[in-house]
Amino acid sequence: MHLYRTHTCAALRESDVGSTVRLSGWVHRKRDHGGVLFVDLRDHYGLTQIVAKADSDPLRVLEGLRVESVVTIDGTVVARGAEASNANLATGAIEVVADSVTVQSAAQELPLPVAGEQDYPEDIRLRYRFLDLRRETLHANIVTRTKIISDMRRRMEGAGFTEYSTPILTASSPEGARDFLVPSRIHAGKFYALPQAPQQYKQLLMVAGFDRYFQIAPCFRDEDPRADRLPGEFYQLDLEMSFVTQEDVWNTMEPVIAQVFEAFANGKPVTPAGSFPRIPHAEAMLKYGSDKPDLRNPILITDVTEHFHGSGFGIFASLVESGSVIRAIPAPGAGAGSRKFFDDMNNWARSEGYSGLGYINIKDGAPGGPIAKNHGEDATAKLIAALGLGPNDGVFFAAGKESQAAKLAGLARIRIGEQLDLIDKDRFELCWIVDFPFYEYDEDEKKLDFAHNPFSMPQGGLEALNGQDPLTIKAYQYDMVCNGYEIASGSIRNQHPDLMVKAFELVGLSKADVEERFGGLYRAFQYGAPPHGGMAAGVDRIVMLLVGAQNLREVTLFPMNQRAEDLLMGAPSPAALKQLRELHIRVLEAPAKA
Amino acid sequence: MHLYRTHTCAALRESDVGSTVRLSGWVHRKRDHGGVLFVDLRDHYGLTQIVAKADSDPLRVLEGLRVESVVTIDGTVVARGAEASNANLATGAIEVVADSVTVQSAAQELPLPVAGEQDYPEDIRLRYRFLDLRRETLHANIVTRTKIISDMRRRMEGAGFTEYSTPILTASSPEGARDFLVPSRIHAGKFYALPQAPQQYKQLLMVAGFDRYFQIAPCFRDEDPRADRLPGEFYQLDLEMSFVTQEDVWNTMEPVIAQVFEAFANGKPVTPAGSFPRIPHAEAMLKYGSDKPDLRNPILITDVTEHFHGSGFGIFASLVESGSVIRAIPAPGAGAGSRKFFDDMNNWARSEGYSGLGYINIKDGAPGGPIAKNHGEDATAKLIAALGLGPNDGVFFAAGKESQAAKLAGLARIRIGEQLDLIDKDRFELCWIVDFPFYEYDEDEKKLDFAHNPFSMPQGGLEALNGQDPLTIKAYQYDMVCNGYEIASGSIRNQHPDLMVKAFELVGLSKADVEERFGGLYRAFQYGAPPHGGMAAGVDRIVMLLVGAQNLREVTLFPMNQRAEDLLMGAPSPAALKQLRELHIRVLEAPAKA
Repeated sequence: MHLYRTHTCAALRESDVGSTVRLSGWVHRKRDHGGVLFVDLRDHYGLTQIVAKADSDPLRVLEGLRVESVVTIDGTVVARGAEASNANLATGAIEVVADSVTVQSAAQELPLPVAGEQDYPEDIRLRYRFLDLRRETLHANIVTRTKIISDMRRRMEGAGFTEYSTPILTASSPEGARDFLVPSRIHAGKFYALPQAPQQYKQLLMVAGFDRYFQIAPCFRDEDPRADRLPGEFYQLDLEMSFVTQEDVWNTMEPVIAQVFEAFANGKPVTPAGSFPRIPHAEAMLKYGSDKPDLRNPILITDVTEHFHGSGFGIFASLVESGSVIRAIPAPGAGAGSRKFFDDMNNWARSEGYSGLGYINIKDGAPGGPIAKNHGEDATAKLIAALGLGPNDGVFFAAGKESQAAKLAGLARIRIGEQLDLIDKDRFELCWIVDFPFYEYDEDEKKLDFAHNPFSMPQGGLEALNGQDPLTIKAYQYDMVCNGYEIASGSIRNQHPDLMVKAFELVGLSKADVEERFGGLYRAFQYGAPPHGGMAAGVDRIVMLLVGAQNLREVTLFPMNQRAEDLLMGAPSPAALKQLRELHIRVLEAPAKA
Repeated sequence: MHLYRTHTCAALRESDVGSTVRLSGWVHRKRDHGGVLFVDLRDHYGLTQIVAKADSDPLRVLEGLRVESVVTIDGTVVARGAEASNANLATGAIEVVADSVTVQSAAQELPLPVAGEQDYPEDIRLRYRFLDLRRETLHANIVTRTKIISDMRRRMEGAGFTEYSTPILTASSPEGARDFLVPSRIHAGKFYALPQAPQQYKQLLMVAGFDRYFQIAPCFRDEDPRADRLPGEFYQLDLEMSFVTQEDVWNTMEPVIAQVFEAFANGKPVTPAGSFPRIPHAEAMLKYGSDKPDLRNPILITDVTEHFHGSGFGIFASLVESGSVIRAIPAPGAGAGSRKFFDDMNNWARSEGYSGLGYINIKDGAPGGPIAKNHGEDATAKLIAALGLGPNDGVFFAAGKESQAAKLAGLARIRIGEQLDLIDKDRFELCWIVDFPFYEYDEDEKKLDFAHNPFSMPQGGLEALNGQDPLTIKAYQYDMVCNGYEIASGSIRNQHPDLMVKAFELVGLSKADVEERFGGLYRAFQYGAPPHGGMAAGVDRIVMLLVGAQNLREVTLFPMNQRAEDLLMGAPSPAALKQLRELHIRVLEAPAKA
């Protein structure tokens, strides 16, 4: 007989009744029923009920043990009988009567209960993560995460991609977020950096002729922690393809992502591959007030600026004259309810720093509120007709400079959808946002900057860079969005050295800058570079959506806390002076506190 | 028609003759045959011959391009005809007559030729790695590497393991090699470390109840570069299992590793799963003079100390009296050859710092050399009979303290095997080395130290630690060896807190030290830890063996050079003062050179 187990804790069935078995696992729960002790023995695979008879040796041993101790049980499988069976448990038809118990590891008093999964403070959960990870939901989330990643890998290989691991100790890349640095011991005063993403390496792989690359890639950004971002490291499904247009990337990745979602959606509907809407960025900003629209929300925003030229509602009329826009956000059915809803929305907008949200509330066909009154009966009727509003609908208006109005409209759209319960939570709506602007105006630095990826190909190529207003140039740049979250981002890359130099010139960087900062890639493009493009999908985010978790720490094995500390292992920690000396660095004295 | 290609460069066959096609790829070779230009167009998948007819536009464009330029060819598939076919090429039956050529990316003059794969200086190869990676052998090695890793993953999942990714930004672990440190921005004066291996995390996963873990894990050691070790990062197939004995680990992993080898051995014989020899460490040191024996070498070492008690060969006799051992290393058939072979071996041993290698050379049954002469006719005959030597064999003798003699005998065994060409290079001989000593005596520090993994379980448990001479305690610790290389190492772990404290006490560390240095793991063992064990296999080394490469850089995508520099990306590099200030560190001034 095996030293530890003949079966896992999920294996025994009615057909095993009468067998002598050996099980090992954790003491999950103990229940005393009139001198007989029932123990739920748990392992990774499941639970089996153990019975220790009155006055038996097993009873004495198990009584003395705390839950979460590890034991090996020798015993006999018996049927529970119809009335005692537990249909919710794979092993619910049987129990094991213990003949002997071997204690493998006695548990001390627990700082964190495992069975029952009570809410517990996060710092305790992270410090005792090995206990936290035994809890049913987190344990299952982690297992699902690994299955999703394994499934992604299989589908990517099925789509003709090969997984290549790119270096983790690499060069600092000056664009983007803050790098984690690693001091070099051999080269005094020099530093490696951890990759923010394998962007340059994957493009170099294309230049090296590997054609279709993917990687479940660890990425590192030294950013201040946020609710939707873990400190330190995160994972991307990173990919790149040669000799492709952006349509090829979309057509290749839609089935992969849709099928991954379908495989783990637990029956919830998923936008089918081949029918992801492809929404131009400008249209998304207009209709959804966001470049990551939640398409489960049926509300569509409309530009109604034209309606308010010379309107009797003077505020909007004068705003429109001075170049502002007015966006209408319908609130279906809200007119039938109380005015409080409308006033609350207006107050919310003010609390968010906007000047407010005007509205019309239609009750039994009669439009109410100050806008309707001042705008005039005919004009209001025309507006309502243009918006296709029903006799008990409401509509809000976001007014202001285009980007401000779009943003407020987008936030209002989300809030209205939630408050009116218009969002079907039990579905996954996927789409592409395409044709992102290539440049944007940086208000802080008062200069042109790349809107997204500086390595993307501008639409129109050199001609556009030379002749067009830069802010009107679009890029072959796209995002994939699910339920209001950006889950992937990509582009066709700019593989022409002259185009690359020109694109950087417009944001104020010289050819010498490009050579210095992106030397590896720039050099590579001189020696035969294929047209190429790709994308990167956020693995953590996708897992979170699929398991329905509210926090990235619920889908991550050993996360750091919001202060970027690993409470379990005690990182970061001071280093020995000898180590620092070997690395040619010293720690700065803390400045005296004011 | 697709913008770039209707087919890859490996796709077209005789059945495509007459089709209009579009191909994209690199200009691999150009050959001018009487005004007609033949171009081998290359992509990741293969080569297709392009024909540009005399005086055609395609000819003019292609003539003006350097090799390695990227082009798109529109053309018509024609049959080459029987005499012009190339049976070595998948597309060898056809060629494509070019109608038009689009230049996607013109190559400058190459710093490194791609076609033909001439030897080139390593710094050029690494600086232009994107060209180097286009060369046939390296490109194929990298693809094989990815296939091996994918195959490992599939087999591990098939064996019931789940892949979990463990953190890369983690705590410094004071045992083992030197850590790479990462300064924390948020916590002034503190540092993360990159994992030397996920040892503690994988054990924590077992304590968390995940049962069977594996990971293709990046590992980081800041060691001085060696020929058989790349600077920086390397990959392990890391795994751990709960409720197992060491036999379970062996029985589980033998099929996985044997099948991976078989899948990529190109028909070379591989030791079948289930028949890996399990050789105790002490036996390996005796018979092979090494704990990583090359079993392709048929030579076995024998201890012949007893034969030299009171021998007429005074040197050995007095060595034996003073506690030295004598080890015999046969050299089959060498007696028939020249004495020079024996003298050369002796000189080699001296050049390695040993006092020499005595020998007997038997020619037509007559033993020759000073040992035979002095040892005496009868005693020599007895010795030869005991060793089972034939009438034209030779035998060498390594004498000295046991560890020294074993080491010299092991090196001599390898050298004799190579020089006499006794090693069948075209096979993979796999074995386990088991029962490693738990402790060793550290001659430098004059104290007891762990021989291998401090987390291993000592055989005999607490009783052995309390009562036995520590240097005689064995561990449940094992290596897997192939053709003279250690390719994996593992153990059953010590999951008992009291045993852990005792084991560390013997090397001079207190309970407080254990708590401070391995707090996460030590704490975890208090709350129900299953018996567990596992191993880690060196992915880079296995790939190197399977593709027959001589250098790890030939199986690594973007390796650093021997000075730990990434010449392509320019790492490490100086950091901006602002970055360093954010990280609360400064670089030490270089000391004035003497």
